[in-house]
Amino acid sequence: MHTVVRSQSKEVVIGPDQPFCIIGERINPTGRKAFGEDLRAGDLSQIVVDVEEQVAGGAHMLDVNMGIPFVDEAELLAEAIELVQEHTDLPICIDSSVVEALEAGLEAYQGKALVNSVTCERERLDRILPLVKKHGAAIICLTNDETGIPETAAARIEICAQLIDIACGEYAIPIEDIVIDPLAMTVGADPQAVVNTLETIEGIRDQFDLNMTLGGSNISFGLPGRHALNAAFLAVASRAGLTSAIMDARTPQIVEACRAADLLLSRDEWGTKWIAAHREAQAAVS
Amino acid sequence: MHTVVRSQSKEVVIGPDQPFCIIGERINPTGRKAFGEDLRAGDLSQIVVDVEEQVAGGAHMLDVNMGIPFVDEAELLAEAIELVQEHTDLPICIDSSVVEALEAGLEAYQGKALVNSVTCERERLDRILPLVKKHGAAIICLTNDETGIPETAAARIEICAQLIDIACGEYAIPIEDIVIDPLAMTVGADPQAVVNTLETIEGIRDQFDLNMTLGGSNISFGLPGRHALNAAFLAVASRAGLTSAIMDARTPQIVEACRAADLLLSRDEWGTKWIAAHREAQAAVS
Repeated sequence: MHTVVRSQSKEVVIGPDQPFCIIGERINPTGRKAFGEDLRAGDLSQIVVDVEEQVAGGAHMLDVNMGIPFVDEAELLAEAIELVQEHTDLPICIDSSVVEALEAGLEAYQGKALVNSVTCERERLDRILPLVKKHGAAIICLTNDETGIPETAAARIEICAQLIDIACGEYAIPIEDIVIDPLAMTVGADPQAVVNTLETIEGIRDQFDLNMTLGGSNISFGLPGRHALNAAFLAVASRAGLTSAIMDARTPQIVEACRAADLLLSRDEWGTKWIAAHREAQAAVS
Repeated sequence: MHTVVRSQSKEVVIGPDQPFCIIGERINPTGRKAFGEDLRAGDLSQIVVDVEEQVAGGAHMLDVNMGIPFVDEAELLAEAIELVQEHTDLPICIDSSVVEALEAGLEAYQGKALVNSVTCERERLDRILPLVKKHGAAIICLTNDETGIPETAAARIEICAQLIDIACGEYAIPIEDIVIDPLAMTVGADPQAVVNTLETIEGIRDQFDLNMTLGGSNISFGLPGRHALNAAFLAVASRAGLTSAIMDARTPQIVEACRAADLLLSRDEWGTKWIAAHREAQAAVS
């Protein structure tokens, strides 16, 4: 299955036979105090730096989130999206928990966006899916519902089936525009957390052949050596059927792991992209 | 399934619920000209350095290979094994293509060794398996035969079935002492090479539940960025069912990938080993 997203001028295809899609997560004030203060003061200039760094790092798409308290998130997100689109042709993942902000972001965006995200909660689905349909966007659907995050793969896969019924059946969204988030939790809090996520990914791949994405760094929260854990996880998850991740494209070890998985899993024949990236990195240091 | 190997005083268990078994590959003159010359001149002192480096790097076992032209390999291998056992209590993987050298190595070794290796060639099996049986050793069996290395997973799995029939059926070697090498070839020469290896690993895990090992760096031969490729491969292969690899324990990125896979795949509960290794590494640099 191919999920196609677009900016004004560039198309990105997400799919199991495509390079692993790296969605740069950096344009997000969560945990970035100075950035949040800049944004609140109306200074969006750091966004331009973030765009440049993630493009240089190898992102295929950029997530844009403007979730800070006490601002008009809808207005700020629309402004940020326009600014990002002035500085890159990478497609955007419009990220908010506020429906009005998603709506403003979709209005401002030029192209076919990926909306991040909706849970399998009836009230959320009924507000967000009409917007997605209206704008012809793709949407990340999380495999949790009103009762919280199910622990087992079987329960998450069941939610995935419900999501498909509602989004495709009731709202006529094309199935290829559904991107599932199988949910990654830290292995520091539950030794089975990653195994559950991998089994969910494998199940969704086998049963629904859908594209999937997740937060690539969640699994290592609270642990030392996070880059090595995230790198190993993304390679393993890529083999399991994950086709994308929202991650920090500025971390070479993690980006490299995704590219390595592409080469190993025959999505980069003869290592053309691997070798090109290696030469670029060498040219940059010399 | 658990494969148990032993030195004079230490036991190592290989198995899918155990930490990924790192077999240090360094004590091998292949591609090490100066080391080969030392050995030929009767100077084995570099072996002691190699032992120390690999133990420090995190090896669980050490492979010992003395394959150089124009020496009495049997005598040299026996001597090397005695020397290694004086300097470490890690169990040894006795590595030679010369049957007499394997025999001398087994005679010299104190404990239960892992023999590296035998192919599924009738004449080799009939010479090596009696030695393995006599010494109560475990043995690495390669999934190739007289006709060469089969490309497909199905053909390699079929060879694995033959190996079990002969080793366990005819020579009464306990099945848990059979460690299969599913064969890893470079993805630089065949884009499907790693996928074939992974499918072989998954098939052998599902059908025979045997332990497996392989040369951890073969897949990246001829390519740039080998450490990143090997690291990603070992994490993915570990999830597929590989329980061990013969690899350079001096490369932190690769050792870390194996340990990361252990933590992610619930073989290192609460990250006890991961956190300890991280603290040790930090103490070493400060």
